[in-house]
Amino acid sequence: MKTIGDIGEDALIATLCQNLTTSPNLIIGPGDDCAVIASHSPSSKNQDEQFLTLLKTDAVVAGIHFLPTEEARRVGWKSIARVLSDFAAMGGRPGELLVTIALAPSVTLAWVRELYAGMEACLKEHGGIIAGGETSSLPEGAPTVISIAGRGLVKSSQLVTRSGGQIGDSIYVTGTLGGSIHGKHLDFTPRIPEAAWLTQHFKINAMMDLSDGLAKDLPRLASKSRCGFQLHHQSLPLSDRSSIPQALNDGEDYELLFTSPDSILEPWKSEFPKLPLTKIGELTAEENSALSGGWDHFSR
Amino acid sequence: MKTIGDIGEDALIATLCQNLTTSPNLIIGPGDDCAVIASHSPSSKNQDEQFLTLLKTDAVVAGIHFLPTEEARRVGWKSIARVLSDFAAMGGRPGELLVTIALAPSVTLAWVRELYAGMEACLKEHGGIIAGGETSSLPEGAPTVISIAGRGLVKSSQLVTRSGGQIGDSIYVTGTLGGSIHGKHLDFTPRIPEAAWLTQHFKINAMMDLSDGLAKDLPRLASKSRCGFQLHHQSLPLSDRSSIPQALNDGEDYELLFTSPDSILEPWKSEFPKLPLTKIGELTAEENSALSGGWDHFSR
Repeated sequence: MKTIGDIGEDALIATLCQNLTTSPNLIIGPGDDCAVIASHSPSSKNQDEQFLTLLKTDAVVAGIHFLPTEEARRVGWKSIARVLSDFAAMGGRPGELLVTIALAPSVTLAWVRELYAGMEACLKEHGGIIAGGETSSLPEGAPTVISIAGRGLVKSSQLVTRSGGQIGDSIYVTGTLGGSIHGKHLDFTPRIPEAAWLTQHFKINAMMDLSDGLAKDLPRLASKSRCGFQLHHQSLPLSDRSSIPQALNDGEDYELLFTSPDSILEPWKSEFPKLPLTKIGELTAEENSALSGGWDHFSR
Repeated sequence: MKTIGDIGEDALIATLCQNLTTSPNLIIGPGDDCAVIASHSPSSKNQDEQFLTLLKTDAVVAGIHFLPTEEARRVGWKSIARVLSDFAAMGGRPGELLVTIALAPSVTLAWVRELYAGMEACLKEHGGIIAGGETSSLPEGAPTVISIAGRGLVKSSQLVTRSGGQIGDSIYVTGTLGGSIHGKHLDFTPRIPEAAWLTQHFKINAMMDLSDGLAKDLPRLASKSRCGFQLHHQSLPLSDRSSIPQALNDGEDYELLFTSPDSILEPWKSEFPKLPLTKIGELTAEENSALSGGWDHFSR
């Protein structure tokens, strides 16, 4: 009998999403960084003021996303920042979040307090609040699971999905790639103001955040946009001590990957002088471009 | 060093919620069945039409909330129905949900498909849709975790919390209590139309759903309402083969527990002839009433 390890994460998700019931309010369903839902306020007539709801859930697991010995404060920061990065990837900003922690009874109160301190630190710096959540017990020995779910908001005029990329678009990436294991995978900065600025001033056709590595995520974006891509390997912005293969495959960069017909490099440099923006390629007509590598959650 | 097993679930949650940042949009924060959030639509002026957003997250864990050998379809139903029951407990109805499944690579595709079939069956019968979610891998041997998060909606005029109970209110409970382990803990019906009817036609001062057992949940409701309670043990509606201690302590009844100054028994019988409604006591002035028993997630 086929296991989910056999088929891999993308095929599993595709299978599960085949027969889901939908609704007129569901603007973007499974398969993007967040789900997007229309406002339920029937009297909202001023289109300029219309906000859409972003829904996102994301879990980190001890032994997979962080070492069991890692500082709880950094784990808390990461668990929140991952979700905020997904809101940014749609052009949005954080709203109210729910925190689920599933852990064994032997975990110390001090550890959980530090975890929450890290979450609050991230929210204080980047926006959003904790509105509730749940605690659940796990058997002794089971890995701690921290799941963050909640909503963000995006102006309908600034919503960007993975699927709007156009042939000829330049492909851009913020920051540098590779080597996140040296610390960035815990302490990264969700690119919220950068995404807001981009979506306000330029025609951003497609965007996502880089969580599983460019080799995995760029083909996803291109496929959703029904395009191929040409990647300029020599242009990749490498993190310190990282090689091109590491920039492609390490994952957990949490940078913005987006496509646009506009020339953004110069205005970006004025607006965000400390954060690199790099053009790394173009979307092309040829579908099914492939890159080997990247991170599959169920590969063995 | 104190562990969370030492202090228990309620004290853990109280500690974690002490210093959380809040926001003007957060109408009800941690400590109720759902978080309640004001609409972000600034042009929504017609108060009659105003809906509030309910946010909820809830996880079921193999070995805790279901047997690892249980039919996947029933597990899927339960995972969704628990969240729908929480929306009902605030007077609301389900909206868009996100599904997180964390499992080992050896879980079969067939199992996951059946899980989703059970989720969809529950949503089809009771409302709501799956809008997205996440898959995450666990090490082999770790228990499967299914976490459901999402939003519901409630008319602002029909919102009921745990904290509005008044001295002298009658305490009511729907259905029968105890013995959920014989199957009801998997196959229960979230009381959505019942809650909508109650909140539309009567003054329901406080409400919650019974998940941890009356002995645990009634003191929570009373405490939130700053009341005591008088419980008529002999009046408790017992499930088949259940005793009074079982009705108090078994948990996972997923019935509505609510308080009201109104006489509801007769109109209820006309509206829902097949589902019992029972008056089980009154809210009193004396705070700190206690009942021993119920389910603590971290007790050992």
